Amino acid sequence: MLSLASSLPGFTTSSNPSLLQQHGKGESHHPSAPPCLVCSPADTSQVQALVRLCGEHGVPVVPHGAGTSLEGHLSHLDPRPSISLSLNNLAALASLSVPSRTATAGAGLTRLSLNEQLRGTGLHFSVDPGADASLGGMAACAASGTSAVRYGTMRDAVRAMTVVTAGGEQVNTGSLASKSAAGYDLNALYMGSEGTLGVITELTLNLHPLPSHVSSAVTVFPSLSAASKSVVDMLLLGVPLAKVEILDRSAIRAFNAYAANVPDLREAPTLFLEFHGISEEELAAQVAMAKDACEGHGSSEFEFAAGERERRELWAARHGTYYASVRLRPGAGGVVTDACVPLEHLAEVIEETAADIEREQIVGTVFGHAGDGNFHCILPVREDDPADYLAKIEAFNGRLIERTLAKGGTCSGEHGVGSGKMLYLKQQYNAPTVGVMRAVKKALDPKNIMNPGKIFSWDE
Amino acid sequence: MLSLASSLPGFTTSSNPSLLQQHGKGESHHPSAPPCLVCSPADTSQVQALVRLCGEHGVPVVPHGAGTSLEGHLSHLDPRPSISLSLNNLAALASLSVPSRTATAGAGLTRLSLNEQLRGTGLHFSVDPGADASLGGMAACAASGTSAVRYGTMRDAVRAMTVVTAGGEQVNTGSLASKSAAGYDLNALYMGSEGTLGVITELTLNLHPLPSHVSSAVTVFPSLSAASKSVVDMLLLGVPLAKVEILDRSAIRAFNAYAANVPDLREAPTLFLEFHGISEEELAAQVAMAKDACEGHGSSEFEFAAGERERRELWAARHGTYYASVRLRPGAGGVVTDACVPLEHLAEVIEETAADIEREQIVGTVFGHAGDGNFHCILPVREDDPADYLAKIEAFNGRLIERTLAKGGTCSGEHGVGSGKMLYLKQQYNAPTVGVMRAVKKALDPKNIMNPGKIFSWDE
Repeated sequence: MLSLASSLPGFTTSSNPSLLQQHGKGESHHPSAPPCLVCSPADTSQVQALVRLCGEHGVPVVPHGAGTSLEGHLSHLDPRPSISLSLNNLAALASLSVPSRTATAGAGLTRLSLNEQLRGTGLHFSVDPGADASLGGMAACAASGTSAVRYGTMRDAVRAMTVVTAGGEQVNTGSLASKSAAGYDLNALYMGSEGTLGVITELTLNLHPLPSHVSSAVTVFPSLSAASKSVVDMLLLGVPLAKVEILDRSAIRAFNAYAANVPDLREAPTLFLEFHGISEEELAAQVAMAKDACEGHGSSEFEFAAGERERRELWAARHGTYYASVRLRPGAGGVVTDACVPLEHLAEVIEETAADIEREQIVGTVFGHAGDGNFHCILPVREDDPADYLAKIEAFNGRLIERTLAKGGTCSGEHGVGSGKMLYLKQQYNAPTVGVMRAVKKALDPKNIMNPGKIFSWDE
Repeated sequence: MLSLASSLPGFTTSSNPSLLQQHGKGESHHPSAPPCLVCSPADTSQVQALVRLCGEHGVPVVPHGAGTSLEGHLSHLDPRPSISLSLNNLAALASLSVPSRTATAGAGLTRLSLNEQLRGTGLHFSVDPGADASLGGMAACAASGTSAVRYGTMRDAVRAMTVVTAGGEQVNTGSLASKSAAGYDLNALYMGSEGTLGVITELTLNLHPLPSHVSSAVTVFPSLSAASKSVVDMLLLGVPLAKVEILDRSAIRAFNAYAANVPDLREAPTLFLEFHGISEEELAAQVAMAKDACEGHGSSEFEFAAGERERRELWAARHGTYYASVRLRPGAGGVVTDACVPLEHLAEVIEETAADIEREQIVGTVFGHAGDGNFHCILPVREDDPADYLAKIEAFNGRLIERTLAKGGTCSGEHGVGSGKMLYLKQQYNAPTVGVMRAVKKALDPKNIMNPGKIFSWDE
């Protein structure tokens, strides 16, 4: 590491201990495993030079955006001394095309900052994973969020990327066109590869027109199952829901205690809905059809957020579910689960999960992006919790994944695998499937320097 | 090959010369390069056994669906004796989930046959590349078509695949859930890999609700540029166009001569539009907004297809543009180009392309999926055409690609690379980018038996 550091005169580096601690953990509940050094290159060519040097010295590189990943993606677990490569200095909006509905930005730019800079253009960037993640990190982790049901996930949002390979070469994936059939889809290969194949330095993103007419509503159901079934029906009817979030009783309880700006909601299985329309009539048609579908499953109190402010508060509160949930136990941090099932099975899986929490007498909320079949539990844990409580939480998550995989689902809908879900990945895929991933990794990073030890093990 | 043939007692094989000729060409304008044998396995495990045998004997395998690919994908150019692996016997609809909006089908099932079997379910499979392609072939070539602007391309349509690797192992990509962040996106890796990495044997596909309200319209513009700009505006306004096709004067001329069931259209730059709605009011709101946007660019004669029959005839005729275009020169076959540009540049690129055709005094039509920036030229050529006419066509296509790449576009929007566009792929991507594709190929098919010599060369 010393010999590497001495060859880094042109780079901004830091070995401030608290910065190193932070870079080895981020917002993940997994313990910090810090790097030896944080390097902050100024541009793609500096990233190339840095990665080349790391290759020569056998130094692992963990790319770091805003640090909002949740599954131990940022931990420096490899025994070799390693660096955290911060993309903070690559955070400019390089170009914008309104007619093509695209923006090209540095990987370190965050999604909220991008949207801030898009103000007045009539366009917005739709992927909203709650946290103000960096765009590069969102691509690396295949992020999504509340608006995926209508506008898609990060996979749908990226046209092209600049990626620095483990060998320090610059690769340009995709094209600026809205689609392409020219060769292997390298865009998609780097997407969700969690920094294990290269460093994303720039992205061209799809933008969407801001809806001219918006309406939000909250409605409650006799059961989570009834709420899930109404989502199935709305989507089968073709209602282009902009957002449809499901929350269980505990989540509403947490939410009421936390969200001071929003009137308390009834503690019942609930859907938060948002509709985007091009005209008053078109929006009204969507809402009427959705309301009918919900009422068919016993929904009541179809309440609309009155104005833009109330709507923003509602969704800000929804995005605060993490903080609201961990506050159910003072002084706690949160273990977050993330599973996704085919919509047909959402009702059953989510009901069983909520029942499991009750049966085990653990504290936890259940909520999620119902339109995608993606749901989360937040389980507040404290540092002074006895080992058997933590074991209960772990066993609960294990059963949740088993239940999910049994229904053809996936062990991660949007948080990724990192170091935290490697066992579950092996449960989800057969050995040849993980073998293909491993073969790709070995071909593109033969020295295993790019975020080593994540997603799957280097050796079988 | 003889030693291989003798180890294939359980397989359906054929060496009928006309079948071999057909399997080495399909609908491509590239000359046939036939296999030595056509093998038609009965299921995934037979595909595995066959590919394993081929690996042992060093026999190249070219997967074959419906034979509708256009860029020499099916040609057996490798000097080693090779087989065509037909997926014809893997053509069953294995399962259907209406609540999840998914169908699982064998790779040999064609898209029209799938939609036939979906009748009465309220769902349809949306990707429509014109030809009645097989679903596996559509995934292998990253197909799209007229409805991509609203419902997405094949990349958006596939949740999970069963793939047989070059080593004969069975890999399961993705999951049955609507999204996943669990490991590398192998779904996307095999998508568009044109049979060079493995054989797709089964797919789970996203379906969409059939729209309850549909309207189609035809409108003409003073120029291709005006037509393109109105498409930009409609999409910026958020009109969820189901289809939006652009056709130049020559295409309309060809279309009038060919489509007996449809009244003649004025020979002018034209848009064909389709709108899908959930109610009469919602549909009317879309149409009104689209009409306004078109009129803002000088459109006139916004004519609606009166009933379902007229609408079907209109789109059937549009899908017949290939046949209509080649008939502009009796006895000809068609060279089809396929480029895609960012929407901002569609007006300019398509105008220059139409002007190039006129300037060169070649016969050709220009049309395409305007919402995606994807356009085609069909250039009828005859076997007795002098060499300099063919040279003109080739030079024209070269200029078209150069023009496209200069604007950040792609050398293939939806037809793929095959053997026909390998040179253009090298123009589009820098050497390290093609190098990553090559490294993946060598890692997953070390003996180079899977559709060898396509997309990029094995050696640099």
